[in-house]
Amino acid sequence: MNRPDLLDQLARAAQERAQRGLHRRLRAVEHTAAGCCSIDGRDFVVFCSNDYLGLAAHPDLVTALQRGAAEYGVGSTGAHLISGHHRAHAALEQALAAWTGRERALLFSTGIMANLGVMQALLGRTDTRQPGLCLQDKLNHASLIDGARATAATLRRYPHADVDAAARQLAAQPDAAALLATDGVFSMDGDIAPLTELAALCRHEGATLMVDDAHGLGVLGPQGAGSLANAGLSQDDAPILMGTLGKALGTGGAFVAGSAALIDGLVQFARSFVYTTAPPPALAAATLEAVRLARAADDRRERLRHLIARFRTGAAQLDLPLMPSTTPIQPLLLGDAERASDAATALETAGFLVGAIRPPTVPQGQARLRITLSAAHRDEDVDRLLDALPHALSATNL
Amino acid sequence: MNRPDLLDQLARAAQERAQRGLHRRLRAVEHTAAGCCSIDGRDFVVFCSNDYLGLAAHPDLVTALQRGAAEYGVGSTGAHLISGHHRAHAALEQALAAWTGRERALLFSTGIMANLGVMQALLGRTDTRQPGLCLQDKLNHASLIDGARATAATLRRYPHADVDAAARQLAAQPDAAALLATDGVFSMDGDIAPLTELAALCRHEGATLMVDDAHGLGVLGPQGAGSLANAGLSQDDAPILMGTLGKALGTGGAFVAGSAALIDGLVQFARSFVYTTAPPPALAAATLEAVRLARAADDRRERLRHLIARFRTGAAQLDLPLMPSTTPIQPLLLGDAERASDAATALETAGFLVGAIRPPTVPQGQARLRITLSAAHRDEDVDRLLDALPHALSATNL
Ligand SMILES: Cc1ncc(COP(=O)(O)O)c(C=O)c1O
Ligand SMILES: Cc1ncc(COP(=O)(O)O)c(C=O)c1O
Repeated sequence: MNRPDLLDQLARAAQERAQRGLHRRLRAVEHTAAGCCSIDGRDFVVFCSNDYLGLAAHPDLVTALQRGAAEYGVGSTGAHLISGHHRAHAALEQALAAWTGRERALLFSTGIMANLGVMQALLGRTDTRQPGLCLQDKLNHASLIDGARATAATLRRYPHADVDAAARQLAAQPDAAALLATDGVFSMDGDIAPLTELAALCRHEGATLMVDDAHGLGVLGPQGAGSLANAGLSQDDAPILMGTLGKALGTGGAFVAGSAALIDGLVQFARSFVYTTAPPPALAAATLEAVRLARAADDRRERLRHLIARFRTGAAQLDLPLMPSTTPIQPLLLGDAERASDAATALETAGFLVGAIRPPTVPQGQARLRITLSAAHRDEDVDRLLDALPHALSATNL
Repeated sequence: MNRPDLLDQLARAAQERAQRGLHRRLRAVEHTAAGCCSIDGRDFVVFCSNDYLGLAAHPDLVTALQRGAAEYGVGSTGAHLISGHHRAHAALEQALAAWTGRERALLFSTGIMANLGVMQALLGRTDTRQPGLCLQDKLNHASLIDGARATAATLRRYPHADVDAAARQLAAQPDAAALLATDGVFSMDGDIAPLTELAALCRHEGATLMVDDAHGLGVLGPQGAGSLANAGLSQDDAPILMGTLGKALGTGGAFVAGSAALIDGLVQFARSFVYTTAPPPALAAATLEAVRLARAADDRRERLRHLIARFRTGAAQLDLPLMPSTTPIQPLLLGDAERASDAATALETAGFLVGAIRPPTVPQGQARLRITLSAAHRDEDVDRLLDALPHALSATNL
C-alpha cells in the first residue's frame, strides 16, 4: 500500500500557497457603525463590504428580524418541501417577483446554492438525450462556473463581455440546448455585462439567458430592480434572474425569479433547494422589509452615484489605476499579488479596510484592490481614502 | 438550427414527474407552537421536522437572535475573508470545536455547502497528480454525493453500512488518496453508521474518515456531542466532522470541525466557504446560545428516548413496518410512492403532518413515511399518531 494521505496533501498545498504569498487569513471583524468596523480594537472605515445601500444595520431591518424571531422562532425546522417553508418565505418570494417584474420567485439559502440549483435543474437532469451547452463569461462568479462544472453540460467560457465570441461558440453547436449565463455586474471588475446584446443573441440562437445580478439588484435600474430593469429587459428577454440578498439588501440568502414553469421546475429538480434546510423565517421577514426599503431608496442610490463620481474624479486626478466601472465596485488594478497585499496593509495602517483580491479569485497578474462604495459613506470618508491611496500604492513600489 | 429549448425540456420533465405521481408541491406552513403548525388555517401536530430537541422556537434562542440583531445588525456585509467574518462567528466556532472535542471549527452557510467545501478542498484541487478516491455509503445524503461528483475524484458507493464492501473497494485501489464519507445517522433511515468499524478500516487503509453528523449532533452521545462521541471516537479516528445547525440545534447553517491544519486548508481551498457571504452574525449569536442549551439538554434527550421507545413499542404492537432505528427518525417503509403520498394525506386529515419520502430521495420501491420525534411532543401526541396510523395505512391499500 502506498496511499497518499489526503490531509497531508491539503496541508502541503496550503503551505505552497503561503510560500507564494497567497495565504488567506481569517480575521474577525466587529461592525461598529454603518460603513465602519473594528478589528482587534482598531477602528476602520470599511471600503470592502457589499452593503452598497448601507442597509445591513438599518433599524427597520433590525426590528423586522426581532419581530420575526418573536413571531416565528429561529430555525425553520426542515426543508422547504417538508416543514420549513414558512408564510414569511412565501411573502418574500412574492415581493421579490413583484419587484423584479417576474411571475414567480424561489428562495435559496445562498447565491452559491441558487446558481448550483439552476444548473442542476436545467443541465443536470439525466432525462435529456444530449448533454447541454453552457456558455459563460470568463469573469463570471465562481459559483456559476462551479455550478456548470457539476453537471454533464459542456462548459465554454467566452472572453470577458465578448458577445461575438459567445455568438461563435453558440453557432458552432446549433443542435445543443444552451444556457448562456453572465454576471449582471461583474463582482471583481464592477462593469456591467452587455445585456441587451446578449439577450438579442440568445433570442436569435434559441438559447436561454441567465443573469446573476448579485451586484446590480438594489443598485441599478428603476426602484433598484437591477441590471436587467436598467437595460429595459423583461422576463421574456432574460428568463432566469438570480439575485442575492446579502449585498445591497443587507440581509442574506438568494432567489431565482422567472416564469411559473421555471420556478416549478426548480422545485422539482434543483437539488440545492430540495435537500437543504429552509433559512430562518425571521430572516425572510427582515428581507421583506429590506425589499421595501430598497425599492424606495432612490435617495441612497443617488448618494451612491454621487460618491462613485467623487471617487472616480479624485482617483483620475491622482492617476490611480481605475477600471472602467460605473458601479459601487471600483477596483484599482495593481497586477502583482504582493503589491495588492502590501497596499491593503498600508491602507489598514491609515484606517481603511480594503480587499486585496488575488489569484485564483482574479486571473494571474491582475491582482487588485477591490474598493467598494456604500451610501453609508460620507464625502469625507471618500476624500480621506483618496488622500491615503497614493502613499499606500507608492509604498508597494519600493 | 435545431436547438432544443432548455425551459421546454424542464417543463416537460416536471410534467412527466407529475404523471408518475411524484410532483413536489411547495406549501407555506406557519409554526404555531413547538411541534405544531398550521397550513391554510388547519392545525397540525408536526411529525416531520428536524427540531429534535424542540429548540427552534426556544425563548432563549429568540432573545439571543434579537440581542444579536440589536448589537450587530442583520447582514454580515461580505465574505468571511473580506468583511463578513464577525466576532460572533469566531465565538461560535470556538464553542463548536470545544463541544465536539476538536481543535478548530469553521462555519459554512449550509450543510450542503459544508459538504461541498470539504470535497472541493480535499478532492477538487488541481495540484495533485492523481485524482483521489471517494467512498460513500449508498444512502448518504445528496450533498455528500453531489459534492464528490463535483470533483475529479472517482466516486464509489458501497452498499448501505457494508464495511466489508468498503474494505474491498479501498483495497482495490491501494495507491489512491482516499476519503471515506458517511452519514453518522442516516437521514431517511434513522440508523447509525458502523462508525467504529469504519474508523478501524480507514486507519488500516490510510484513508481519511469524514462523518456528516447532521442528525446525530445534539441527539446522541454525552452532552449531545454526536454520533462520534457516542461511539467514543476522537478527532484522530475521524478527522473530519461535519455538523448542521438547522436540526437539533434549532437555528441554521453548518460547520466542519477537525485539526487546525484541516480548517486552514478549508479556508484556503473550500470554494463554498471563500466565495459566499458570511451568514448573519446575529444568527451565529443565536446558535451559540443553542450550543449552550443543547449541551445541557440531557432532560430533552431523555425525553426523546422515552418518546422513541413509546412510539416503537406502540408501532410494533400495531405491526407497522418499522425500520431498525434507535434515533428520532422513525420511518415506516411502505414501498410504493403513491401509497406513501396517500398515507401522508390521510394523516393530514387526522391532524398530523408527516413527510412522504419518495424517489429519487429514496431508492425506487422504498417510499416511506419519515416520522420524526421531538422532545417537544407530548406522550399523547405520539399516542394519537399511533391511533391514526393503522387507518391511514389501510386507506392506502384500497
Ligand atoms: C456575482 C455573484 N454571484 C453569486 C454570489 C454568491 O452569493 P452568496 O454570497 O449569497 O452565496 C456572489 C458573492 O457572494 C457574487 O458576487
Ligand atoms: C445528512 C445530511 N447532511 C447534510 C444536510 C444538509 O444540511 P443543510 O440543510 O444545512 O444544507 C442534511 C439535510 O438537510 C442532511 O440530512
